[in-house]
Amino acid sequence: MVDRIYGDIPGFPVGTTFVNRATLAASKVHRPLQAGICGGIDGAESLVVSGGYIDDEDYGDELVYTGQGGNDPATKRQIADQELTRGNAGLARSQLDGRPVRVVRGAGGDRKYSPASGLRYDGLFRVVDHWHETGKDGYRIWRFRLVTLDSTDLPPSPPAGATGPAERVATVVQRLIRSTKVAVQVKLMHDFTCQVCGLRLMTPAGPYAEAAHIRALGKPHDGPDEQGNVLCLCPNDHVRFDAGSIYIDAAWIVRDSSTHAEVGPLRKSAAHAIDPTQLAYHREHHVP
Amino acid sequence: MVDRIYGDIPGFPVGTTFVNRATLAASKVHRPLQAGICGGIDGAESLVVSGGYIDDEDYGDELVYTGQGGNDPATKRQIADQELTRGNAGLARSQLDGRPVRVVRGAGGDRKYSPASGLRYDGLFRVVDHWHETGKDGYRIWRFRLVTLDSTDLPPSPPAGATGPAERVATVVQRLIRSTKVAVQVKLMHDFTCQVCGLRLMTPAGPYAEAAHIRALGKPHDGPDEQGNVLCLCPNDHVRFDAGSIYIDAAWIVRDSSTHAEVGPLRKSAAHAIDPTQLAYHREHHVP
Repeated sequence: MVDRIYGDIPGFPVGTTFVNRATLAASKVHRPLQAGICGGIDGAESLVVSGGYIDDEDYGDELVYTGQGGNDPATKRQIADQELTRGNAGLARSQLDGRPVRVVRGAGGDRKYSPASGLRYDGLFRVVDHWHETGKDGYRIWRFRLVTLDSTDLPPSPPAGATGPAERVATVVQRLIRSTKVAVQVKLMHDFTCQVCGLRLMTPAGPYAEAAHIRALGKPHDGPDEQGNVLCLCPNDHVRFDAGSIYIDAAWIVRDSSTHAEVGPLRKSAAHAIDPTQLAYHREHHVP
Repeated sequence: MVDRIYGDIPGFPVGTTFVNRATLAASKVHRPLQAGICGGIDGAESLVVSGGYIDDEDYGDELVYTGQGGNDPATKRQIADQELTRGNAGLARSQLDGRPVRVVRGAGGDRKYSPASGLRYDGLFRVVDHWHETGKDGYRIWRFRLVTLDSTDLPPSPPAGATGPAERVATVVQRLIRSTKVAVQVKLMHDFTCQVCGLRLMTPAGPYAEAAHIRALGKPHDGPDEQGNVLCLCPNDHVRFDAGSIYIDAAWIVRDSSTHAEVGPLRKSAAHAIDPTQLAYHREHHVP
């Protein structure tokens, strides 16, 4: 296994430009000479966005990045399915671990955000989602949503005077659970009981549960913030559901994605009408 | 139970000033005429920082707020222990739910951040931690760390053109899991197996675990980012540990806080030396 180098590379701050892939590789900001992702099953350290994949979307501080494989460099079209292996597995692993990924943009990418020539290091991003879909050319592609760390990463508090040994350390966001008014409503309907395993996680301040949006809010899924698109889950089953370890079939049975064995029936509440089209979307895009 | 009003009150934007508690109460930004916290076991909607509690700490975008009760208004000193009830229970509940709390500063608070006279609405904060300790006057106080939502709350992505029905919705951060290099090291030492329950949560991209800092990083705990201060936990046991539902005793036994019954032995790894003083700190401050 390669020795991975995560995070900024000293001497190459955000905005550093490179004339070509050889000088970029020499800097270690992105080490492969051709591959778009530097990574493997242990994690991904960097990627290059340079317009090589027809399905890429660049929003500046957010990217929807297409995984590697199945691509014809001559035409930039997909000619085969992609797998969750090599760099793709690396980006998924970096999402699980909350590792920062260096993003390099090259000429040829979205004009609004890419350099006119050469390549530019654009800083650290974190992977917040990954899923698969049928790309514009009709083949399965893996997609990764990345957001810049600058907007999400809060440095820990500076040392509080004489009181403690803390020092400023580099932390990244591994997972961020959001709540909305609808989320709280759904949790109350189930009295904070997990719809998958039945656990009601108790704390001294009361029960705790999380609301899982079945089809994610925001780009590019654009799921609605409605009760029908939300499940009440314990944190463990929330991770499993988001990662596609479990899914809910058309008969409301929770199943394990690797074996398709029954985990149990989804626990329902008469007051909570779940939208089956959102569950189908989850099965289609999040189950490998 | 009161009908709670969470979030901003229309017509009273951040920076609105009030001459006294009566006009503040009339606005509904903070409804009680005297109490510092507007809340109960279902949640807290607002609080006032006005220098009434000797242990309060104000850092502008962060507050360490002392709970209510046991306080002599004449001298501002603590004269009895505080309980996790009423407004204190409300702030703890709002932490679990990820509810926003309106913060009002009054003259009399920290000079750097407080208005010279009257009261001022300073926006929405979220509760990120609560614990108890012995205050400067020798009695048990409950403390709450709040951070401004502006620095942590990411609005969901705007609608992606014609592709979906999403609209800009108000979301707040319910829980945020951070990772550091040390955190990843500890997870690898345990091969992503929970030290409390033995679960190795599998996803299609590999195993998932979280690193729990035993004594929290940052103000005011200032725990070190060292292997001895970190546990490898599944998300459910991470919530339980942070909330004080479970603790680890001096004989390395995991115990339930409400009954002190044994949950099981802490699973250890020869490579991972845990600092017992950090576990003692957790027991002292996070177990009710």
